[in-house]
Amino acid sequence: MFGEVYDVIVVGGGHAGAEAAAAAANMGSKTLLATMNLQTIGQMSCNPAMGGIAKGQIVREIDALGGYSGIITDKSAIQFKMLNKSKGPAMWSPRAQSDRMRFAEEWRLALERTSNVDFYQEMISGLIIQNHKVVGVKTSLGIEIKAKSVVLTNGTFLNGLIHIGDKQFGGGRAGEKAATGITEQLTTLGFESGRMKTGTPPRVDGRSLDYSKMIVQPGDKIPEKFSYLDTPVLTKQRDCHMSHTSEQVHDLLREGFDRSPMFNGRIKSIGPRYCPSIEDKINRFADKDSHQLFVEPEGWDTVEVYVNGFSTSLPEDVQFKALRSVVGFENVKFFRPGYAIEYDYFPPTQLKHTLETKLVENLYFAGQINGTTGYEEAASQGLMAGVNAHLKINGKDPFILKRDEAYIGVLIDDLITKGTEEPYRMFTSRAEYRTLLRQDNADLRLTPKGFEIGLADKSRMERMEEKERKSADFVSFFKNTSVLPEDINPILDSVDSALVKQSDKMFKAFSRPKVTMDHMLQLSSVAQFVEQNNLGREEMEQAEIQIKYAGYIEKEKNNADKLHRLENVKIPENFDYSKLKSLSFEAREKLERIKPVTISQASRISGVSPSDISVLLVYMGR
Amino acid sequence: MFGEVYDVIVVGGGHAGAEAAAAAANMGSKTLLATMNLQTIGQMSCNPAMGGIAKGQIVREIDALGGYSGIITDKSAIQFKMLNKSKGPAMWSPRAQSDRMRFAEEWRLALERTSNVDFYQEMISGLIIQNHKVVGVKTSLGIEIKAKSVVLTNGTFLNGLIHIGDKQFGGGRAGEKAATGITEQLTTLGFESGRMKTGTPPRVDGRSLDYSKMIVQPGDKIPEKFSYLDTPVLTKQRDCHMSHTSEQVHDLLREGFDRSPMFNGRIKSIGPRYCPSIEDKINRFADKDSHQLFVEPEGWDTVEVYVNGFSTSLPEDVQFKALRSVVGFENVKFFRPGYAIEYDYFPPTQLKHTLETKLVENLYFAGQINGTTGYEEAASQGLMAGVNAHLKINGKDPFILKRDEAYIGVLIDDLITKGTEEPYRMFTSRAEYRTLLRQDNADLRLTPKGFEIGLADKSRMERMEEKERKSADFVSFFKNTSVLPEDINPILDSVDSALVKQSDKMFKAFSRPKVTMDHMLQLSSVAQFVEQNNLGREEMEQAEIQIKYAGYIEKEKNNADKLHRLENVKIPENFDYSKLKSLSFEAREKLERIKPVTISQASRISGVSPSDISVLLVYMGR
Repeated sequence: MFGEVYDVIVVGGGHAGAEAAAAAANMGSKTLLATMNLQTIGQMSCNPAMGGIAKGQIVREIDALGGYSGIITDKSAIQFKMLNKSKGPAMWSPRAQSDRMRFAEEWRLALERTSNVDFYQEMISGLIIQNHKVVGVKTSLGIEIKAKSVVLTNGTFLNGLIHIGDKQFGGGRAGEKAATGITEQLTTLGFESGRMKTGTPPRVDGRSLDYSKMIVQPGDKIPEKFSYLDTPVLTKQRDCHMSHTSEQVHDLLREGFDRSPMFNGRIKSIGPRYCPSIEDKINRFADKDSHQLFVEPEGWDTVEVYVNGFSTSLPEDVQFKALRSVVGFENVKFFRPGYAIEYDYFPPTQLKHTLETKLVENLYFAGQINGTTGYEEAASQGLMAGVNAHLKINGKDPFILKRDEAYIGVLIDDLITKGTEEPYRMFTSRAEYRTLLRQDNADLRLTPKGFEIGLADKSRMERMEEKERKSADFVSFFKNTSVLPEDINPILDSVDSALVKQSDKMFKAFSRPKVTMDHMLQLSSVAQFVEQNNLGREEMEQAEIQIKYAGYIEKEKNNADKLHRLENVKIPENFDYSKLKSLSFEAREKLERIKPVTISQASRISGVSPSDISVLLVYMGR
Repeated sequence: MFGEVYDVIVVGGGHAGAEAAAAAANMGSKTLLATMNLQTIGQMSCNPAMGGIAKGQIVREIDALGGYSGIITDKSAIQFKMLNKSKGPAMWSPRAQSDRMRFAEEWRLALERTSNVDFYQEMISGLIIQNHKVVGVKTSLGIEIKAKSVVLTNGTFLNGLIHIGDKQFGGGRAGEKAATGITEQLTTLGFESGRMKTGTPPRVDGRSLDYSKMIVQPGDKIPEKFSYLDTPVLTKQRDCHMSHTSEQVHDLLREGFDRSPMFNGRIKSIGPRYCPSIEDKINRFADKDSHQLFVEPEGWDTVEVYVNGFSTSLPEDVQFKALRSVVGFENVKFFRPGYAIEYDYFPPTQLKHTLETKLVENLYFAGQINGTTGYEEAASQGLMAGVNAHLKINGKDPFILKRDEAYIGVLIDDLITKGTEEPYRMFTSRAEYRTLLRQDNADLRLTPKGFEIGLADKSRMERMEEKERKSADFVSFFKNTSVLPEDINPILDSVDSALVKQSDKMFKAFSRPKVTMDHMLQLSSVAQFVEQNNLGREEMEQAEIQIKYAGYIEKEKNNADKLHRLENVKIPENFDYSKLKSLSFEAREKLERIKPVTISQASRISGVSPSDISVLLVYMGR
């Protein structure tokens, strides 16, 4: 039936699978997207939102490289918010609420319009492997589909087991079947697998809520968007709302603790630390008498509502009784209860930086199968796996992003170097060079790379170059143009900054803490430059950040350069750590297991101390 | 969790379930729609089209009564065609291709906007029954939800078993779980259940087809629509295409016959006679060397395509190889193979005219669970079950449509009187009064009834009354207005009809075979009447039909009246047929089993002959 040999088969159609298929296909690989249900491509399994702190930056990076998540989000958004706008630009994080149905539909149509993507609906139950190389997949009907490489993005479907109170049943998501066969085969081949757990809150009927008792959470007055391309900007938005749990709610929830699969030992695997269930929050933070609930509409028109913060696997009657005690939820009606799900993952230290598995050539893993949590984390891994699958079968160099180049680089390096024993999510704190990894400059950082590998197209590259040129010109203008005291002093005075006595470059005044672009635009020469050069919001913002944060940015760049020099010190492939007696026992064990390629990578392995690194550096000839 | 007692619980969210929930709720019943997956409400399981011969009339009837199927179809249509337009108006049958995603979304949103409908996502695995009365349902989690009545619309999900070649696996639809528990419980209670089979063709990638080799099948130049309300009329349409199988295709299919579950005895149940699988067609019509395939797009934008006419459960490799031999399909790519599905149904002779079961009070069945096939058949049963569930719990008279009032009446009377051993679909030939049951007058026939029971709203009633009044006025105008020979003769001459010598009422000339409304509009007095009275297309068409088919319509009305007189002869509830020795053995057996309420119903039982009816009539005192 499938006579042709695909370049890439992507198994799964969630965020990871969809990006993997799009990336490989857009680079020129004949790609097959195989999924259990073609009608659930791009399904948001959990809350109807993209982005957020650190995650929003990842979506911008995906977009800058030529991925689709940003475009899909913009097309399906119902609310946009730039989080952390009061902090420095490294912390600015875009977030959008999406229309769940529209999001999935836009993904499906975007993939259909990607000419190299074929589709096939069936459960993939096995891989075809020859000489430690994957050469195809097997479907549950027994069909063999040949391919040069395979990307697995199974999400929570591998032996998925759903828990609600003391009931449990197989399933990959509510109302959907689990996937079987793949874990069993991979462990036979020597892969180590584990179990993780995640959870989701009840979905409720918005018509049963009293929003007048909650705190309204509107979007930004002037909404931005994710994609650097010409996607639509929201002209109207839907509000979210906020409510809170109380001691009474907690007491009601506690009544079900003896029937909780989290507490009675039925669920053994670990859930996402930063997205805990409500019972977990009550248990771990016993002193807190209230937790925040974020009430998210599921779309433009639907009455379905997502109760963010109330993830739970307590018995459904307990969920219901407790939620009815939350302010605004007195008459709540459930669309479905919350639940927990356990699923198989493969500790990601079994992967290379390209997300190819070490054990089986041309086999890639992306998303929750690697122990991550989050749409954005999954999507970015999918994109990188799709890219690298394509590059490898075409004999090209792998595409690896460094930790100072992208959150995506941090994510993958963390995963394959340190592994993870609990669902991994991204934070700004995980990125040591976060001042460089901003949402505003993802295009400047990554579009040239995306263009070079053939993923980002020419128009995207040209847009980036125009933005780069215009903002650089604007920075030069501030550096080279002088301003008279009588012109700048009113501005300085208005922000209580010391006045100047003589002319100086504008750059100087602009660098002062409270002086903003809005102030500078009061100067007629600046306004004139903006008009003459037809500068947009983005270019002005870019210039402002480059001027005002020049010091921080410079410092981090220097740090990163130092790292790169370390990075160049390679460790031979089968280096025998046992001959370095002064290594700590733990370091030796970890180094032997993880086999870092460079000293830099070795330095990030947990348990490998700075003194262990010194030992390595001395030995490697420095 | 569900403290409140619902008036009506509808199990299932397909065409039957959605209409049932909407009808009960709109009449004022507090209704719960319970389904395994809220994201598949209103899913078109088979081809993306509504209506067709006899079926289109049913959709118009649903609309006239105040149901939603017509509105949803209009909102999601991508092509409209009035079938049989060259025949008499009794045969005119509207049909629309729908955008599958949009259809489901519109249903979901329409139900959400129906204020009395609540939603709950979970498998319903049992009924709560007390003293032969249903009082609620049980979910797979063990939740009990109380209700005054329950409508089961389980479609193909009850113990659904999917077959492809020699493989078989449980499932209610491709990629979806089967439902268990309900059949087992009902048979324990004494219900008789059976198995039916249906099938579906492969879905393919439209990008892989060569449409230039096929025959284009456009929509009507001036598309109409289904709803009598103000739904949108299509301003652009998508084409369908036609291709054909060949001897070569048939030979390739025959190669798989030994692995066909249809022929090797694995599938024992009977499939829809008029929607057979391609293997069935080849087998039964061995002399035909070609069968027609109708290639239907799945929506406005999607590349997915439905290959109508190629339903099959042959092994997927055989399906593929054979379809590749069809003209235009040389490079076809599958989205998924076709399959057959077996599922439980309950012979509908176990139902009353209200679709309430005879064995369990307040329990209603609608759709495929009654052995029918087709979206429209299912939707109309759902509506009638929802209406009657509401009426009964409110102590009101049942709502039953007679055979001369609606196709829906024919459908339900056929089902409960004759039963069915193969999937039942509607045809115009099943309706003995089909001249009365036209698509153009469904509103005139049924909107007053829908309004009386509180389902059709006032604005719908007013629209109908205006149409009725305007078309009657127009008919009167033709009856009362004379036309001069010099005015009418050019028209008569143009259609080769004998000329007239003196003035006569316009009605006379208009009644002649080839004279149409378009001709009459050439008369200035007619054109003037139309303009003065602001007559629309529908009203003019109605007047034309009433004038030109007056004879046929009158004759059928008389026949129907005769039937109604028979209808009035009631048979006592526990009538002992054994005392009527002259009844045939077969008639006695059937009458005892089915227990008809009237002589008329008895007359329609297969195996009850006219002479048996005479015996009954004599005994009942005529």
